[in-house]
Amino acid sequence: SILELLDEVHHADIAEILDEITTEEATYLVKLLDSETTSEALMELDEDYREEILDNLSPQEIADELNELDTDDAVDFLSELDEDIQRQVIDAIDDAQHAQDIIEMLRYDEDSAGGLMAKELVRVRETWTVAGCVRKMRAQAQNVTRVHSVYVVDKNDHLIGRLSLKDLLTADAKSKISDIYIPNVDSVNVHDTAEDVARIMQKYDLEAVPVVNDSGVLLGRVTVDDILDFIRDEADEDYRMAAGISQVVEADDSLLKLTRARLPWLMIGMFGGLSAASIITGFNSIFETFPKLLVFVPLIQATAGNVGVQSSAIVVQGLANDSLKGNIVSRLLKECALALINGVSIATVVLIISHFFFGTTYLESISIGIAIIAVIILAALIGTFIPIILDKKGIDPAVATGPFITTSNDVFGILTYFLIAKLILGF
Amino acid sequence: SILELLDEVHHADIAEILDEITTEEATYLVKLLDSETTSEALMELDEDYREEILDNLSPQEIADELNELDTDDAVDFLSELDEDIQRQVIDAIDDAQHAQDIIEMLRYDEDSAGGLMAKELVRVRETWTVAGCVRKMRAQAQNVTRVHSVYVVDKNDHLIGRLSLKDLLTADAKSKISDIYIPNVDSVNVHDTAEDVARIMQKYDLEAVPVVNDSGVLLGRVTVDDILDFIRDEADEDYRMAAGISQVVEADDSLLKLTRARLPWLMIGMFGGLSAASIITGFNSIFETFPKLLVFVPLIQATAGNVGVQSSAIVVQGLANDSLKGNIVSRLLKECALALINGVSIATVVLIISHFFFGTTYLESISIGIAIIAVIILAALIGTFIPIILDKKGIDPAVATGPFITTSNDVFGILTYFLIAKLILGF
Ligand SMILES: [Mg+2]
Ligand SMILES: [Mg+2]
Ligand SMILES: [Mg+2]
Ligand SMILES: [Mg+2]
Ligand SMILES: [Mg+2]
Ligand SMILES: [Mg+2]
Ligand SMILES: [Mg+2]
Ligand SMILES: [Mg+2]
Ligand SMILES: [Mg+2]
Ligand SMILES: [Mg+2]
Ligand SMILES: [Mg+2]
Ligand SMILES: [Mg+2]
Ligand SMILES: [Mg+2]
Repeated sequence: SILELLDEVHHADIAEILDEITTEEATYLVKLLDSETTSEALMELDEDYREEILDNLSPQEIADELNELDTDDAVDFLSELDEDIQRQVIDAIDDAQHAQDIIEMLRYDEDSAGGLMAKELVRVRETWTVAGCVRKMRAQAQNVTRVHSVYVVDKNDHLIGRLSLKDLLTADAKSKISDIYIPNVDSVNVHDTAEDVARIMQKYDLEAVPVVNDSGVLLGRVTVDDILDFIRDEADEDYRMAAGISQVVEADDSLLKLTRARLPWLMIGMFGGLSAASIITGFNSIFETFPKLLVFVPLIQATAGNVGVQSSAIVVQGLANDSLKGNIVSRLLKECALALINGVSIATVVLIISHFFFGTTYLESISIGIAIIAVIILAALIGTFIPIILDKKGIDPAVATGPFITTSNDVFGILTYFLIAKLILGF
Repeated sequence: SILELLDEVHHADIAEILDEITTEEATYLVKLLDSETTSEALMELDEDYREEILDNLSPQEIADELNELDTDDAVDFLSELDEDIQRQVIDAIDDAQHAQDIIEMLRYDEDSAGGLMAKELVRVRETWTVAGCVRKMRAQAQNVTRVHSVYVVDKNDHLIGRLSLKDLLTADAKSKISDIYIPNVDSVNVHDTAEDVARIMQKYDLEAVPVVNDSGVLLGRVTVDDILDFIRDEADEDYRMAAGISQVVEADDSLLKLTRARLPWLMIGMFGGLSAASIITGFNSIFETFPKLLVFVPLIQATAGNVGVQSSAIVVQGLANDSLKGNIVSRLLKECALALINGVSIATVVLIISHFFFGTTYLESISIGIAIIAVIILAALIGTFIPIILDKKGIDPAVATGPFITTSNDVFGILTYFLIAKLILGF
């Protein structure tokens, strides 16, 4: 039967099956199969699709799934539901402690240590012996999928150290925990940001990190599998932002969803283009006196866009990796120096090509060359400055990449180009 | 003394200290401190800086550092050295087995399971008892920083299952391994790509995955901390490529290195801009007959660029996440439909604004509007098609984002614009 067939299958594979079939078939399978399997499979699905399936389940059926999930997943699962259904589902959860934990955890910010942690962990008292500890751990470990580390607490539940399973295995059964535990344990505060948790776990190569409150009481732990998902989601988000896609979308989403994610930035780019059009119209004497200058507008615009995107990407990555040292002024001076090198290189090539292939006069070519240098410096400064300012104001600097920077650089670049040309050629 | 002070410090923090001080000071510290600490700290440094420090060490000193590293790190470390120094260092390694392992592992591709795996793991025979197993594990576990899982092999060293430490702790001392091990173990082939390893570990939430050769013999294991670093590096690389930065650079690198990473794409963008200039020059009758069309070139260019970047980003992410289903034709048809929606929206706004604010004639406005729709469709197709083709040819599709797509769309977009205008307005 299908039940036996799917019994041995990993929940991540069940999730792939649910993804391939229709919502009705998936709902049928979720109801049919053991919640132990389906609950975790549901967690692997896209949020939208999960909601579609849950719409067909009763609060009691949803509660049965929740019962099988670790607290971290249960909270994520629950927080997607409408508030009235949330209450009904919580009331229907069998395990009172589980329900209590979930309610407590619902108040933490999704992107904080509290939002990432699970309550499931193994804790032992420093006063126990190794043998006693192993006995008590057996009971606790039933609910914990992967143990990683055993956390040592004092009688007030303050985290005071950890014990690796390896140490426990190789220790004498009669030794006391207080003699063998490692007092130096990395931990995070429940209000620390998810970025901080990810940074610490990556820096110290941790598989799990304990979470404590302000007084040092052990509340839960964050495991590396969730940090891996977090890091990948963040990277995907930054990549999307740099490409001017404003929502979580996949290639297989509906046309409506894809349009909502893409049209806003295209519209902003359009207004940038229309601003550029007014600038050119404003310099209308050019059309009669120096029409050849118009031919190089795409070059100016492309260069300004490319420089801006490069500069902002380096700053955004530097901010994300915490590798941006020094103050703003020295950073901007360095960008200027770099822009000068790149600018002179490109201006030289353009100067020669414009004069010999496009027949511009010496003065026109010089105007174009100087404008290119100025535009590159300006674009580099905008690309560097804006993400730093946003970051200082607490806004994600990654929004200031891609179309945002390209659009502002299009406008400022073209304006600079014509102003410099006007200054030199005097039209 | 400084030695006592640094004794308790984690190698990742030592690395940060080494990064702050001069190369001479860092070299002094590396020679002074225990290789157990400094070897792992060296691994956390930038490759360039590590090489500078290693240049000041003798082959014997380098070998002392290597001796303390896990095989995976030792191989990475060694492969950065010149070949003649490599040989001298290998000859100077005390531990013959370690040297042997390193030589064997040097031949695997860096971005394969073999390139990521370490030899250090705990293996047990199915015929052992739990008590005997724990005894033998004690010896093996000395060299293994984190045990994660115990791998079960048959007498020919074929991987046949695994044992979680939790199971081992809670099992009866007299039971046999063959009775308690989990035969269903995820493993990867030594020649699998790093991407595949990362995908499997993330999908099944693994902290470590065993690596086998073609006949199923257990060779090593890949741990999640290295996969985390791999995923972050890959994401950073894709982000850089999308921004037209062709090398691994950080904001704090030298001007020369930053120029080498940035100038090539700016040059390519420049040639794109010059091509656009020739196209406009080619349509030179426009300057007299419909000069207002020139004013909208930046709008056309910005739109083509933004659409292309969006389309390519969605395809590149879909390829990376393995979520791109269906064939190319249906994918392109969907992009066309989406481009039509976006195109008509933007064209309508531009049609109205151009006529009422820029005083273009009806026919000019209609030409501009139709051209925008055509350009958006073309840009979407280029942005979708190129990454898919590159991927099919085995080239990283991420190169075909950012400046690559923008530059080609600048040229094709402007060409399309003037061709359509010529067709409708007949100049
Ligand atoms: Mg169920
Ligand atoms: Mg959560
Ligand atoms: Mg690390
Ligand atoms: Mg490491
Ligand atoms: Mg979890
Ligand atoms: Mg972010
Ligand atoms: Mg040393
Ligand atoms: Mg390697
Ligand atoms: Mg996972
Ligand atoms: Mg998971
Ligand atoms: Mg490693
Ligand atoms: Mg890649
Ligand atoms: Mg552009």
